[in-house]
Amino acid sequence: MPRRLLAVLAVLLAVLLRPAVGDEGMYPITELSKLNLKAKGLQIPVSEIYDPKGTGTSLIEAIVHLGGCSASFVSPDGLIITNHHCVFGAVSAASSVQNDYLTNGFLAPARGDEIPARGMTARITEEMRDVSAQVLGAVKPDMDPLARAKAIDDRIAGLTKEAQAELPGKTIGISEMLAGQSYLMFISTTYRDVRLVYVPPRSIGEFGGEDDNWVWPRHTGDFSFVRAYAGKDGRPADYSADNVPYHPRRFLKVNPNGANEEDFVFILGYPGRTYRHQSSYYLAYEEQHRMPHVADLNQWQIETMEELGKGDRAIALKFDSRIKGLANTMKNYRGKLDGMRKLGLTAARRDEEAALQKFIEADPGRRAAYGTVLADTAKIYDEMAARFQYEMALDSLASMSTLLRAASTVVEAAGGAKPAAPAPGRGSANLFAAYHEPAEVRFLQKLAEMAGRLPQGQRIAPIDERFGGDFSAENVRRHVEAGVAAATLTSQEALAAAIKQGPEAGAQSADPFIVLARDLAPLQRQLRETRQRRTAELNKLSALLIDVRQQYLKKAFIPDANSTLRFTYGRIRGYSPADAVIHKPHTTLDGVMEKTRDEAPYNTPQAVRDLARARDFGRYRLPKTNQLPVALLYNLDTTGGNSGSALMNARGELVGVNFDRAWAATINDYAWNEAYSRSIAVDIRYVLWVTAKVGKADFLLEEMGIRGNR
Amino acid sequence: MPRRLLAVLAVLLAVLLRPAVGDEGMYPITELSKLNLKAKGLQIPVSEIYDPKGTGTSLIEAIVHLGGCSASFVSPDGLIITNHHCVFGAVSAASSVQNDYLTNGFLAPARGDEIPARGMTARITEEMRDVSAQVLGAVKPDMDPLARAKAIDDRIAGLTKEAQAELPGKTIGISEMLAGQSYLMFISTTYRDVRLVYVPPRSIGEFGGEDDNWVWPRHTGDFSFVRAYAGKDGRPADYSADNVPYHPRRFLKVNPNGANEEDFVFILGYPGRTYRHQSSYYLAYEEQHRMPHVADLNQWQIETMEELGKGDRAIALKFDSRIKGLANTMKNYRGKLDGMRKLGLTAARRDEEAALQKFIEADPGRRAAYGTVLADTAKIYDEMAARFQYEMALDSLASMSTLLRAASTVVEAAGGAKPAAPAPGRGSANLFAAYHEPAEVRFLQKLAEMAGRLPQGQRIAPIDERFGGDFSAENVRRHVEAGVAAATLTSQEALAAAIKQGPEAGAQSADPFIVLARDLAPLQRQLRETRQRRTAELNKLSALLIDVRQQYLKKAFIPDANSTLRFTYGRIRGYSPADAVIHKPHTTLDGVMEKTRDEAPYNTPQAVRDLARARDFGRYRLPKTNQLPVALLYNLDTTGGNSGSALMNARGELVGVNFDRAWAATINDYAWNEAYSRSIAVDIRYVLWVTAKVGKADFLLEEMGIRGNR
Repeated sequence: MPRRLLAVLAVLLAVLLRPAVGDEGMYPITELSKLNLKAKGLQIPVSEIYDPKGTGTSLIEAIVHLGGCSASFVSPDGLIITNHHCVFGAVSAASSVQNDYLTNGFLAPARGDEIPARGMTARITEEMRDVSAQVLGAVKPDMDPLARAKAIDDRIAGLTKEAQAELPGKTIGISEMLAGQSYLMFISTTYRDVRLVYVPPRSIGEFGGEDDNWVWPRHTGDFSFVRAYAGKDGRPADYSADNVPYHPRRFLKVNPNGANEEDFVFILGYPGRTYRHQSSYYLAYEEQHRMPHVADLNQWQIETMEELGKGDRAIALKFDSRIKGLANTMKNYRGKLDGMRKLGLTAARRDEEAALQKFIEADPGRRAAYGTVLADTAKIYDEMAARFQYEMALDSLASMSTLLRAASTVVEAAGGAKPAAPAPGRGSANLFAAYHEPAEVRFLQKLAEMAGRLPQGQRIAPIDERFGGDFSAENVRRHVEAGVAAATLTSQEALAAAIKQGPEAGAQSADPFIVLARDLAPLQRQLRETRQRRTAELNKLSALLIDVRQQYLKKAFIPDANSTLRFTYGRIRGYSPADAVIHKPHTTLDGVMEKTRDEAPYNTPQAVRDLARARDFGRYRLPKTNQLPVALLYNLDTTGGNSGSALMNARGELVGVNFDRAWAATINDYAWNEAYSRSIAVDIRYVLWVTAKVGKADFLLEEMGIRGNR
Repeated sequence: MPRRLLAVLAVLLAVLLRPAVGDEGMYPITELSKLNLKAKGLQIPVSEIYDPKGTGTSLIEAIVHLGGCSASFVSPDGLIITNHHCVFGAVSAASSVQNDYLTNGFLAPARGDEIPARGMTARITEEMRDVSAQVLGAVKPDMDPLARAKAIDDRIAGLTKEAQAELPGKTIGISEMLAGQSYLMFISTTYRDVRLVYVPPRSIGEFGGEDDNWVWPRHTGDFSFVRAYAGKDGRPADYSADNVPYHPRRFLKVNPNGANEEDFVFILGYPGRTYRHQSSYYLAYEEQHRMPHVADLNQWQIETMEELGKGDRAIALKFDSRIKGLANTMKNYRGKLDGMRKLGLTAARRDEEAALQKFIEADPGRRAAYGTVLADTAKIYDEMAARFQYEMALDSLASMSTLLRAASTVVEAAGGAKPAAPAPGRGSANLFAAYHEPAEVRFLQKLAEMAGRLPQGQRIAPIDERFGGDFSAENVRRHVEAGVAAATLTSQEALAAAIKQGPEAGAQSADPFIVLARDLAPLQRQLRETRQRRTAELNKLSALLIDVRQQYLKKAFIPDANSTLRFTYGRIRGYSPADAVIHKPHTTLDGVMEKTRDEAPYNTPQAVRDLARARDFGRYRLPKTNQLPVALLYNLDTTGGNSGSALMNARGELVGVNFDRAWAATINDYAWNEAYSRSIAVDIRYVLWVTAKVGKADFLLEEMGIRGNR
């Protein structure tokens, strides 16, 4: 008893004496020296992470931007670790019925067996230059917002071109850090030959699937290994059998002992987008209009496809990927809406702005400079809210109907307007991948219903004309069915043939969808121009708003995430997601077995089941509990794009691979908070255990310098 | 820091030194003296709970069997506390559109305003007598199982009659405790005049509704107060305005300080049914056949009704109660199935039986007595499994179709067979409450589909004849629609009229459902007889199996719950429902507010919202956290029927009102386990706070002896 008590006491003391750590912030690498990281727990000099003047190497040279994900080098021979979901597309492309690498996993027994990861490139950020003065030098005080935005864009293009001439072979990007205030140039090298090395079976790498997405406790082995190749001269090259493994200037040391509760950890990666400095009007628009609308519409689409796919596996498979995308967004938005409601985020921001307005008006100089910023911002969002149903209907027309999307592609090729909707995945190659006529009919009915409900003054004339103004279910059904029956672009082949026929085909076709696409094009162009104008105005207003808020709050803002290299730090730490519930920061293989079923996404491979039964955890066994760690939770500030980021300990050693956030942390995009902002990594111990014991790829552990693996 | 540390240390010491407490067991009150409860934490003599020879009073005299629920006296004037859901029906019956007590709650400002709780009686168990010898004296060794069962039933009826003559005015019941082994006679008094005193609004008493059913963390104020009345002589009487409050021999002292984590607590109540001594064959039948079938069928019915009710509030309301009942069972079964799978319960019991068989065969005497018990038991369940689809189809015919149920009622009244299905709720008064023709059509189609899929040799001839053997969807639809169109018993009025017409009406009617009910009656009678035979055989085999298992395991079994008065004890304690998740044993009003929405079942009343905002928790405030406790969790062994049970502390004072189990504890019915068996009470502090602050019924607190409420 006394020994046990002493042990508990030691833990207690550690907890009571622990430094308060973890802070809002995806810090630009250029700002690390301001953070006093030594006091926070970092045990290496900041110059080890990034040394602007240094001649040696620093950790950022081990950090890779891999497609939309983050990743890191873990060997001198260019071995890269990232998430399974980051290589999903490439593995899928490399798979066939005979070699189903996606389902069964993939291991290249030797370097010569590594196969190209189609479409993947590895970019390493090497240098950052502050170009704020040059960029803003293009702005004249009397410019209107559109002219101002164009001047900035032109100057950025010019600076980029100059730098490219100066630095041949480098990738140059200039990013706006604080809206209309600060700009950084990023100089990087992009390696174009990336190959698959080890990918665990999908039932490990995607364990829990869509069910567990955004969920803690999590049990997903979401990691994979790829390798960057270079020409024989060590420089970027297109794929060639003659290429050689790239030798990075720096790679991360892998720490096979992982990290424990309350350890200091940090992440270097490429977070995508956050919206922390936006006005209450933006938040209200997202909360009351855009997110609930999109979430509901996605849910409707998912339910419709699930209903149609019920009882027909082939159709269900067709819808699988589309449902997945819609569900991911829906779940993220529902999480955000839940968080906004619980936190009263919009009201709090509004209260802050009321105080801010008083602060502005208390001083004549401030009043002159910022007096109407909030009111002008409100006006833009008021306009967006007033025209919301119309704009969403136009967007949905451009995105929900496959036939209309195909038709727009032809119209666009014929010189019509570029459709406002996002591009259909990777090129139009997959446009018909999820096409199923009964679903198309339902979607078109839904679109007609949406258009039919629009208020006077916001009607979509081409749609009203189609239905003769009669939006009764019966009339809509009849018109939609007749339209679909008369459609000609109903397959990828038909679409390709139409595009091949040249611009005239599109301009002259009588296909009802091509005609409709042609009629809608001017409205979509108009909407696009409206949005450009709003963006330009908001950019100018944002610059002013951030400016005066920084004065008012007496602090320098950390720029919102914008897909550039960032640093965030904190601790391995659990949290309380709800009254009476505590979530601990580590999951274990026992939890994998608790969730295991005989069906995806919980169909754990037999090898794992056998190892779990035998409790064969090798050196990764936690001695006290005889368990194997799987995933870990920490209070760092991450968002989409941080997928695949290296999670490092106080000494900069790799202890996990970041891949998701907990449900409550979907709200991170608007606000970070110690109470609920938690991100999720796969524990390096699970990575190494799976690679060695399931993948039988001990040689990869050796390459990473892990000895005595068993 | 040192003071904080000392406090933590004290808690730690208490945890480390805490006695291991909590044990499987819903103990018959007659066995308390064997439990050494003082060592377990009880601070009053066992004779305070039940004193078989005593002349004073004991706690069991404060315990009330209230309908299918448990309850307890909390004042000298017959005030009774139980669950909100236990008085739900009575409150519903007392409500009108003008006085919607169910929605708004009810408080009788004075005793004269207390209103009858329709259908409720309060029964107090006063004495128990072991009548095993008398009952088993009726059994002769050479009796076959059916004769043996009949002899036992006859002897029980005889003994009951004798006792009733001896004890006029008392309620006599004899219950089998261990199958075919032990029998107890319960002597009680039943008070028939019960009145509503205080019922909180439904948004407190049913907060969380079906969503939170079987769920922890829980935030339901599931309590209500009623009062027992007696004639002026103090004896049971039918309702009369002249009746007076009943003065119980004993009532529970209410402790307004509640109970805290790790406190010893116990429950006295009337748990309904458990199945802990059943064979692996029973478990396999439940796990593989009955429960998944019923859960799936309930889910199908729920989804069908939800679909039909979508967009039509009146229809949705019609289905509400039926959906609730189906959902409760479905959720319970899914929880059990989940638990059985996780625990491998059936396989473990099978392994134990394999060892038991070896033990039996190791001794010639045992082999002679028990050698074929397991094999004979297996044979019965094999027969049940083989005929499962047939029997379920026949059961579903008798329960799912309202028209067929109505027809069976008429056929029964006409002297036909009593239908095998359970009675439709409280008499046939509500038979058409959820009736909706489109749902009926879908249900009949589903029933036809089930009957159509039956294997040869197990066909239901009357159904085959109806459809001419053609179970194609089209033919089924046509026949069902024609049948429903020709039905005459389509309302409660039509049914009442038909019954009133006398037996001939039913015998001669050409209503297609009456004809079908008549044709099905012999099959249902046959099934009922088959089940009687199986029950008799299993009862005999169970007696032998329990006998030899007790020898083998060297322990005396605690009888399964059977709606008789039981005692269970343990501690207020949280648990880990899943890997990396900890559930604490107390919820708070902050959690209520977290869940609060503007819609049922989370529509917290404004009064509560205001009090929560003001943190006006009176004397019930937890000083350390400034929170108000709402519900609590403990490792006691409970099941259905324990609803409303008094949760008492070590001194026998009321600290909560039991109302549910946590999800994982649905498996309690088969096996209790310290790791997952957790039951849920509303904390007495929340009861008193709601009654005083929301109900403004301070006078009830005074009646319970609570002073200084504010």
